[in-house]
Amino acid sequence: MEEVPVQDLFTVNNLWMMIATILVFIMHLGFATLEAGLTRAKNTVNILFKNTIIPAIGLLSYAFVGFNLMYPGADFAGGFFGFAGFGLSLPEGWDSSNYNAGYTYFTDFIFQAMFAATAATIVSGAVAERVKLGPFIIFSILYVSIVYPIVGMWKWGNGFLNTMETPFYDFAGSTIVHSVGGWAALIGAFLLGPRLGKYTSQGMKAIPGHNLPMATMGVFLLWFGWFGFNGGSVLSASPGLVSKVFVTTAIAASAGAFGALLISYLKFKTYDITMVLNGILAGLVGITAGADQMGVLDSAIIGFIGGGLVVFGVVFFDKIKIDDPVGAISVHLIGGVWGTLAVGIFGSLAGMNQLISQLIGIGSVAVFCLGSSWIIFFTLKKTVGIRVPEQEETEGLDLHEHGMSAYPDFATKD
Amino acid sequence: MEEVPVQDLFTVNNLWMMIATILVFIMHLGFATLEAGLTRAKNTVNILFKNTIIPAIGLLSYAFVGFNLMYPGADFAGGFFGFAGFGLSLPEGWDSSNYNAGYTYFTDFIFQAMFAATAATIVSGAVAERVKLGPFIIFSILYVSIVYPIVGMWKWGNGFLNTMETPFYDFAGSTIVHSVGGWAALIGAFLLGPRLGKYTSQGMKAIPGHNLPMATMGVFLLWFGWFGFNGGSVLSASPGLVSKVFVTTAIAASAGAFGALLISYLKFKTYDITMVLNGILAGLVGITAGADQMGVLDSAIIGFIGGGLVVFGVVFFDKIKIDDPVGAISVHLIGGVWGTLAVGIFGSLAGMNQLISQLIGIGSVAVFCLGSSWIIFFTLKKTVGIRVPEQEETEGLDLHEHGMSAYPDFATKD
Amino acid sequence: MEEVPVQDLFTVNNLWMMIATILVFIMHLGFATLEAGLTRAKNTVNILFKNTIIPAIGLLSYAFVGFNLMYPGADFAGGFFGFAGFGLSLPEGWDSSNYNAGYTYFTDFIFQAMFAATAATIVSGAVAERVKLGPFIIFSILYVSIVYPIVGMWKWGNGFLNTMETPFYDFAGSTIVHSVGGWAALIGAFLLGPRLGKYTSQGMKAIPGHNLPMATMGVFLLWFGWFGFNGGSVLSASPGLVSKVFVTTAIAASAGAFGALLISYLKFKTYDITMVLNGILAGLVGITAGADQMGVLDSAIIGFIGGGLVVFGVVFFDKIKIDDPVGAISVHLIGGVWGTLAVGIFGSLAGMNQLISQLIGIGSVAVFCLGSSWIIFFTLKKTVGIRVPEQEETEGLDLHEHGMSAYPDFATKD
Repeated sequence: MEEVPVQDLFTVNNLWMMIATILVFIMHLGFATLEAGLTRAKNTVNILFKNTIIPAIGLLSYAFVGFNLMYPGADFAGGFFGFAGFGLSLPEGWDSSNYNAGYTYFTDFIFQAMFAATAATIVSGAVAERVKLGPFIIFSILYVSIVYPIVGMWKWGNGFLNTMETPFYDFAGSTIVHSVGGWAALIGAFLLGPRLGKYTSQGMKAIPGHNLPMATMGVFLLWFGWFGFNGGSVLSASPGLVSKVFVTTAIAASAGAFGALLISYLKFKTYDITMVLNGILAGLVGITAGADQMGVLDSAIIGFIGGGLVVFGVVFFDKIKIDDPVGAISVHLIGGVWGTLAVGIFGSLAGMNQLISQLIGIGSVAVFCLGSSWIIFFTLKKTVGIRVPEQEETEGLDLHEHGMSAYPDFATKD
Repeated sequence: MEEVPVQDLFTVNNLWMMIATILVFIMHLGFATLEAGLTRAKNTVNILFKNTIIPAIGLLSYAFVGFNLMYPGADFAGGFFGFAGFGLSLPEGWDSSNYNAGYTYFTDFIFQAMFAATAATIVSGAVAERVKLGPFIIFSILYVSIVYPIVGMWKWGNGFLNTMETPFYDFAGSTIVHSVGGWAALIGAFLLGPRLGKYTSQGMKAIPGHNLPMATMGVFLLWFGWFGFNGGSVLSASPGLVSKVFVTTAIAASAGAFGALLISYLKFKTYDITMVLNGILAGLVGITAGADQMGVLDSAIIGFIGGGLVVFGVVFFDKIKIDDPVGAISVHLIGGVWGTLAVGIFGSLAGMNQLISQLIGIGSVAVFCLGSSWIIFFTLKKTVGIRVPEQEETEGLDLHEHGMSAYPDFATKD
Repeated sequence: MEEVPVQDLFTVNNLWMMIATILVFIMHLGFATLEAGLTRAKNTVNILFKNTIIPAIGLLSYAFVGFNLMYPGADFAGGFFGFAGFGLSLPEGWDSSNYNAGYTYFTDFIFQAMFAATAATIVSGAVAERVKLGPFIIFSILYVSIVYPIVGMWKWGNGFLNTMETPFYDFAGSTIVHSVGGWAALIGAFLLGPRLGKYTSQGMKAIPGHNLPMATMGVFLLWFGWFGFNGGSVLSASPGLVSKVFVTTAIAASAGAFGALLISYLKFKTYDITMVLNGILAGLVGITAGADQMGVLDSAIIGFIGGGLVVFGVVFFDKIKIDDPVGAISVHLIGGVWGTLAVGIFGSLAGMNQLISQLIGIGSVAVFCLGSSWIIFFTLKKTVGIRVPEQEETEGLDLHEHGMSAYPDFATKD
């Protein structure tokens, strides 16, 4: 008799985690449409191809190796690396609250697996329109199956960032997911160099995205999915906590829109939809580290600042000639760092000790990700090459890598 | 021991309300793509901008003032106006069934907040392609943060429409949400005047939407979200009631498609996809007031008539030269009034007393919304102006208000 | 006291079934955008029209006749045909676990109703760009309201396929749903003949889809919805089983992408996004029959083979001059047959007896669906005709059947 209510609650918790999984899944469509929308029509098939294959890579590689790298086991504590073996193997009681009060083993795996591909998807945007497809897929496989799970383990697998005296805090992954993608995006964009014609002797030339409805759809889908990304990170359907996370997430996104609107209007005297869209995303990335710790006003401030920062970020990276076609570095790296720091400044964990732990987390992830993404991209550059030939870049990657056009029935301007 | 099962049920109920929240959220993407798809390519960025910023306005203003205007408190009964103070403040027991059997305080807030922006989004469609962006945003802030919550309070906050001897009935908002948007859409479209070239001396000239796949996607997303809009209005996961609402909602939408198909085929001898799409929406708006009170056949009749009415509505408003680019007034105002009346005609509440109460509800909301939207739009018209200059309208709002094009890579026809 | 936990669990189960319903609903948007994206811009309105009206047909006809054809009653066992009468009628205890431990009567109806339209939607893709609208709608009504429910009854309504000594197994419908659509797609495409200019004396001429982002969106939405299609087929929120189904479904889809990628790269030496997209779908169709019976590795193998088969299928049907613009027959028929056989080869049911039962199921459904779809299409062909005139096909169905264009603002290439 005692057992029954517990199983009921377990069923509800697990249901929410499965639904959160689906919501995170559809974020991959959001990334695909956002990236495709903010780039040129001649490279659209290439972008769709990358963003379709990346979730498949993420799911398969996470089953083969990633899950057991990220969660080396219940006994594991405090290290830098651990591994529970290849493939998935069902533990005793995998489908009951004996495994976890919030989910089954399979739910655990699939929820985490949906996150895994995100790191590579973020990079995809920054290297768009000039990266070679094959080498990028190799990078994605390595980064998603090895680098991301190791970093994830440091915190979520009970590694050293989780066992510090004041543990590093990153609720749903401002650092662990978004900055992991962001650092590699920075390295990738740097090693590739800017797109042809972007930075000329006459200054920076904007290369506008070819389909803004599609980009807008992408941001709405990402916001939609973020309710699962952050809400699912509660790891149960706990009514108070999940609903609080919904509110902080939505308020930060909204404030991010206004932060970016204000700063971009002041700087450019125009209503720039792409800035507002990226402002929403920066608000979302920013709240992710502390979505469960913040009050409503905290969330609004964090989102607003995140949205403003994205505008400065886009301008800054153009100034140093790091060409990031979709603003991924500004959104995911700057937003991620900002959100991680914000945990030490606002909300229930605020304090100097926490702030120091946050800096340790940001710093160690930065070192590892910068290093590993450099090694992967640089090795690829020196061997097979990472950049398409000039003619291919000019005529479009779709024609050369895929032999097709995304919109064959329409007349284009060039 | 007694407590545990109650908390289980509370967790399920709250879970459904949170999922319904997400579903209502994605309706804003539906509105964005529907409106953008049914208008011209040269104004697309402007429409995306409005529809992206409106949910942000809705969420922030509802946190700041709207929620406490709409729900003045548990003691409040029967009045026209009440206010529980600025900002959100957590009541004791906010995260348990002591607050409500169906949801936490934060879930309550975020579900209602997602509704709030809808009123302004409806207006957006009717004033599209010629309204100035800044004044429209001012209108949206005022309408969403003040007018909508006051009307909402009349019924859902236990105001006078709820305390009449035969209470006005509006399950999920045919009047309280859709007609609130619809009346302001009527005033806005009237005060702005028609788009250039729409009504000429040679008669009405159709201005076709530029992207019908996008419009179709919008209607599917709205229908998808409507399961949360109506289903969430049960305010719990009550199996019988929510599943009944799913059926009435889906049947009315389907019948709406056929109502519009039949009437538009008889009138125009063609299969007009835009009419079918608006017919689905009118079926949905129509069932919204009584989605929990209707049988399957009732729902089919209500939806079918709603779908037919939308065709007559579109023709009628063109005849009186109210230019509504997307048919928003026909869908949300005519559909909303029809659905509200239907509660007195069909289903478990049918009867003369109920019909009279429905008329009182429709009438009082009409007076208040017509008056307040007139005051806002008229004041804006006489001060900053609400219509873009002729050259801007001809060349497109995207170029002038936003300095960009939604589809820069494609060749357009004009 | 004993009753309460049971109702809690019932509420959770029913909630999941309702959410699964919504997920299956949005698959219809996925079908619409996939089919429209893979065909030409001049026929887009026509495709949107079909795919919008089909779910409406499915819901209404399933309420009127289909549900009671498919589920003749609790006493029914082992036959070929049964009928419980027109319309819906609520049984005693319809909204409690007395009706079913997993859902209410209305949930039962609406979940099944969302499946019903799928059969016709599959056909729609194969006959696209040359079928007459009116006759196709007549076909859809007949096929959805009569043929599909009868086949469904054979298994899910406890008909003869379910009462064999070794019952035919089809978890979520590789045969019962997908091959039902696939066989009619084959007949439709055959009786219509290929599109003009597809097979010339110089060989096969590829007719590329006009909007690959839209097609990609379609596949993501289908995958998204498939979590409800397969996960909901558990018929409860059972944590272990639903989460297992999520994993097998996602892994098969991912492996399908790689299967198609590998084979298409080997055959064509190019990265063909449309093959990868169809490979994902074939992986999904393939896992559908045994999604609850397979291990992770089984799922990967089934998906990978399904993805590879789709490439051979597309080539094969082109060789025999069956023109299937979107590859629907390869995905849904070949994938469906493969997935049904796989239940006898992999996973917990594998064995010769099961394989024979699977063959009996595949064969009897084939005979009935080939026969009935031939009768319907052939009768329509000999009376009203099923193919549009040559001029209409050349100029586009949108212009002739609908009097409008999907993209009137854009310049097209022809």
